[in-house]
Parts: sequence; C-alpha cells; structure tokens
Amino acid sequence: MVGRLVAGDRRTAARMISLVENRSPQASELMKLVYPHAGRAEVIGLTGSGGSGKSSLIDRLLTGFRGQGRRVGVVAVDPSSPFSGGAILGDRIRFQRHAEDEGVFIRSMGSRGYLGGLNRAANDVVRIMEAMGNDVVLVETLGAGQDEIEIINLAQTCLLVVTPGMGDDIQAMKAGIMEIAHIIVLNKSDLDGSGSTLRSLEATLGLSHGRDQGGWRTKVVPTVAASPGTDEIKGIEELLAAIADHQTLLRESRELERVQAARVEQELGLVLKDELERLVYKGLKGTGKKKAYITSILQGKADPYSVVEEVIQNLVK
Amino acid sequence: MVGRLVAGDRRTAARMISLVENRSPQASELMKLVYPHAGRAEVIGLTGSGGSGKSSLIDRLLTGFRGQGRRVGVVAVDPSSPFSGGAILGDRIRFQRHAEDEGVFIRSMGSRGYLGGLNRAANDVVRIMEAMGNDVVLVETLGAGQDEIEIINLAQTCLLVVTPGMGDDIQAMKAGIMEIAHIIVLNKSDLDGSGSTLRSLEATLGLSHGRDQGGWRTKVVPTVAASPGTDEIKGIEELLAAIADHQTLLRESRELERVQAARVEQELGLVLKDELERLVYKGLKGTGKKKAYITSILQGKADPYSVVEEVIQNLVK
Repeated sequence: MVGRLVAGDRRTAARMISLVENRSPQASELMKLVYPHAGRAEVIGLTGSGGSGKSSLIDRLLTGFRGQGRRVGVVAVDPSSPFSGGAILGDRIRFQRHAEDEGVFIRSMGSRGYLGGLNRAANDVVRIMEAMGNDVVLVETLGAGQDEIEIINLAQTCLLVVTPGMGDDIQAMKAGIMEIAHIIVLNKSDLDGSGSTLRSLEATLGLSHGRDQGGWRTKVVPTVAASPGTDEIKGIEELLAAIADHQTLLRESRELERVQAARVEQELGLVLKDELERLVYKGLKGTGKKKAYITSILQGKADPYSVVEEVIQNLVK
Repeated sequence: MVGRLVAGDRRTAARMISLVENRSPQASELMKLVYPHAGRAEVIGLTGSGGSGKSSLIDRLLTGFRGQGRRVGVVAVDPSSPFSGGAILGDRIRFQRHAEDEGVFIRSMGSRGYLGGLNRAANDVVRIMEAMGNDVVLVETLGAGQDEIEIINLAQTCLLVVTPGMGDDIQAMKAGIMEIAHIIVLNKSDLDGSGSTLRSLEATLGLSHGRDQGGWRTKVVPTVAASPGTDEIKGIEELLAAIADHQTLLRESRELERVQAARVEQELGLVLKDELERLVYKGLKGTGKKKAYITSILQGKADPYSVVEEVIQNLVK
C-alpha cells in the first residue's frame, strides 16, 4: 500500500487518508511506514478569516504552481464545518475545478468524524500528501484560534490573507497569526481603503519586524484574486515569487533545519496529546465511571479538579 | 481567601484569578475550595466575529442587568490577543466604562501568559466569578474555532452576534456556532441588507429548527447597539427579554439539569486535557530526551509515532 502511495496513486492516498481520519487500528503502523517518504515537499500554510478570498487565491496559486510543472496537494481545514472527506465545503472551495487535474490532490477536513484530534489528523494527511510525491502541499485553515496556529506551524512558509478595512481585526490578529506569518497577502487590494490598510500593515511590521527568521522580514503582497463581477487578477506572480524567495532563503540558510526540527517537535506534541486523550477516554468509557463522576460532581460530593487528579493517578506510573 | 471571595471581595477575586492564570501550585487546591460556591449564576455566552459590535452590545446589556439590580461578571476571551489580566484589549472593550461600577467585575483573557490552556483558565475564571456572588456571568469570545465552541458550551444561554451582509460567514458558521446558539443577535440591524440577512437567518433556522433544547427554538433578535455617529439603541429590551425567557424555560423544565451535567462533562474534559498536556511536557521534557528524539527523527532513524509509543509505555501504567 505504501509502495503504491509513493508511486503517486491517488486512490491509495484517498484510502490511506480515510484510514487515518477514522483512526483505524492500522493507522499508526501505516504512518510509521509513510513517514520516511515524507518531508520533501514545500509545505505552505495559508490562513485568514472568512470572506478574505482564500479559496480564490488558492485557485490562482494552483494555476501558478501547475504552470511550473509541480504537483500540488491541498488540505483545507475548517474546524467550524461538519463536512469532511472528499466532500466540498459548501461554495467556499472555489478551487475545486482543479480537482480533475491529475497533478492536484485536494482533501477537505471539517471538525466531525475524527476519532482522534483534527490537528493530528491534519498533520498525518499532510505527511501522506508529501509521501505521495507532491512538490508543494498547501494547508488552508480558517480563523485565528490556537488550533489553527498549531496547524499553520507545521508549514515552512506561512501566508496570512487579509483584506482592506480589516483595521480592527488586524489589530486583534497582530500578536497571534501575524507573528507567525512570513507573507501577508492583502487580497481584494482593489477595494477602497487598500492604501491605508497597506500603510497600517507596514507600520505594524516596521515596529515588530514581523517574524524574525534567519534574516527573513515579513513581506506584504497586495493581490486581486477575483473581483466580484470581473476576472481581474493582480499580484499572483509577485506572491509566487515571494513564496519562492522564502523557500530559497530557507534552503540556503541553516534555517530549514531549525524549521524542520520545530515541525517535528510540534508533531511529537500532537501525536502524544492525541494518544494520551485516547488512553483517558478508553479508561473512562470502558469502566462506565464517567457518568458516576459527573453525578457526584452535580451532587456536590466531588469537584472536577479532584476527579481529574484521581483519573491521572490511576493512569500514570 | 475563599471566604473573602464568597463575600464578594474584588481584590481577592483578582488575586485568585491571577493565581489560576499563572498556574500557581496552589491553583488546583484553591479551585477545589471555590467550586462548591460556584454554579449559581446565569452564565451567558456571547460570540461573533470581529466588527460585529459585541463590545457595544455588552455595554448595553450591562446597563440593562445593572438596572435590574443584578451583579455581573464579564470574562472577555480573545485567543488571538496577547494581552491578559486587568489590561484592556485595545479599543475593543467599549464596555470598560462599567469597570468603575462596584457591581461589575471585568476580566480580559488573551492567549499568552497561561501556563495551562486558555480554555481551562477561562472556565476557572467563570467559576471564581460565580463564587464571588455575581448573578450573571457574561463570557465573550471572538471567532468560531473549536476552542471558542468549547468555551461557549460552558454557558447556559448562548448568543451569536451577526451583522447584515454576513451571508458567506453565516454559511460557514451554520454548522458550528449556529447550532449551539439559543439567540442570534442581528446587530447593526439599521444597516443595508438587514432585511435579507434576517430572512436568510430565519430560513436557515426554519430548516434546522436551530438548537433543539427542551422546546426552545432559536430566536433572532435584531438590535442596534451603537450606530457610528449616533447613539441610537434598538432591541436591547427585547434581547434582555429573550435571555430571561430562555433562563426561565431552563429553570422550569428539566432542561437545566441536563445543561449543568453537560457543563460538568465539558469542564472535566477541559481540566483533564490540560493536565494531560502537562503530562506530555513532563513526559518529553522531564526525561531530557526530547532533543534526542527530535534529532533521531530528523536523521530518519525514528518517527514520531514510534517515539510516542515509547514515551507512553514509559509514562503510563
């Protein structure tokens, strides 16, 4: 099975992803075999709130990467959606037209249907897409929560998509996502207020120097991926160039090693957290103790802090 | 200390919250003592994306609750902000003018400065605010990620704030937050497009029946909390009435018991997850093995799945 995956077989990849998503008993053993073949793709993370035009942007990036003859995997993660698998996440996925291209492999992941954690599953899917021979893996996430930051941290190059007039949101995002973004994409830059948003972004970056990584300074790239009613496109070449610049800098500096090590550390944390959670749920469900705990807390005979202490004492050496 | 908290002492509450936020060694023992005094407030969750006017809405709700002579605690959770503690989250907190009222206790929580998880800390802070004698505790969160859903699920009555023209966002939110909202607040309802957003919300609710809970049907309440340039207010009385209706229904049906049990279950999960993460870090860091693991994975001699197996075998009974 892993042989067929590494040869690029799409059906094998889809089947393997389903095994991982459903937490089949073979999943861990499979991932052990997949892992040595992973790690060679450029992993690009892309995040931004709803309405920032991420899907149209990915559509254009896919056209760009395919024009360079590169194979691309896309993992679209939306923790607020119940849909997973091959299914299309509503009309959000405007890049679906690429799904018929043999050089593009798209998978969407929602919040439901994962026995393990979504983030761990997303990481496994990225690894499978790497092992199947994609040159680029795009990971799209919605929003700016802690979970999304965990996923985006698995990428080597992180893109944050914003739109004009997001003053308040940018203010709020500044600390979290902005700090981990290598490239800030000011999409819909043909809209009113684009100039002042650009200036405020650059002023913020000027103060914070953006993400400090081996000499890379966070760039702002204005784009127009799809204006309502027109087919105008702007800045996509510049964005592809900025991504390539960052990847070149990673390869040519010692930075790539540091990034890979950070990714492995993150990955270890994800897998370990997931396995421990499974152990606990197994421990609680198997014994039927969970309901008894809840009842005694509601009756005022116990509290969650003491119960957790007991559960962990029973689990750990 | 717990005695002073229960008597409503603000400085004690602030100190206790800091202990919980900083994960001081006494925190768990303190929470065990606080817990029996908590659980008597109406906990109202309020969520919605940036720019939906949550802060102005809270400002008006605070005026309303205070007019009824009730004491109110507010926990403003913004996982994308680095600021925590008594500090004001930029100009987002427009209800700060209530902070000088002795009957209002406000605490903002960002993403940093928590040694444990933010959600677990937020839950502890809500419990402290309950124990200190507040009649109502408002929990505000930004966004629609899985994390925010976890926090909002701790509330008995959940409000989702939307604005006209959020068609796409509502589509995306539908599955996640909309499903857990008891009341959808269509704020800024004086803006263009309000009518069509209202109709689309009601159509969506008509199909899904909203959140099905003891006969409650999700309501849409149009409001104007603060128009730019005017002081126009609309719908706040109706919103307060809808909240009171839901609370009455909870009390008069058996529903409140179910809601309290669900909250305790969620709480157990939060505390457990948090303690497990601590174990993870202990498991990796304590042994000093983490760096060696990462190196051998990077050298292709191991993989995260096998390493985690080993760590768990060493950690767990």
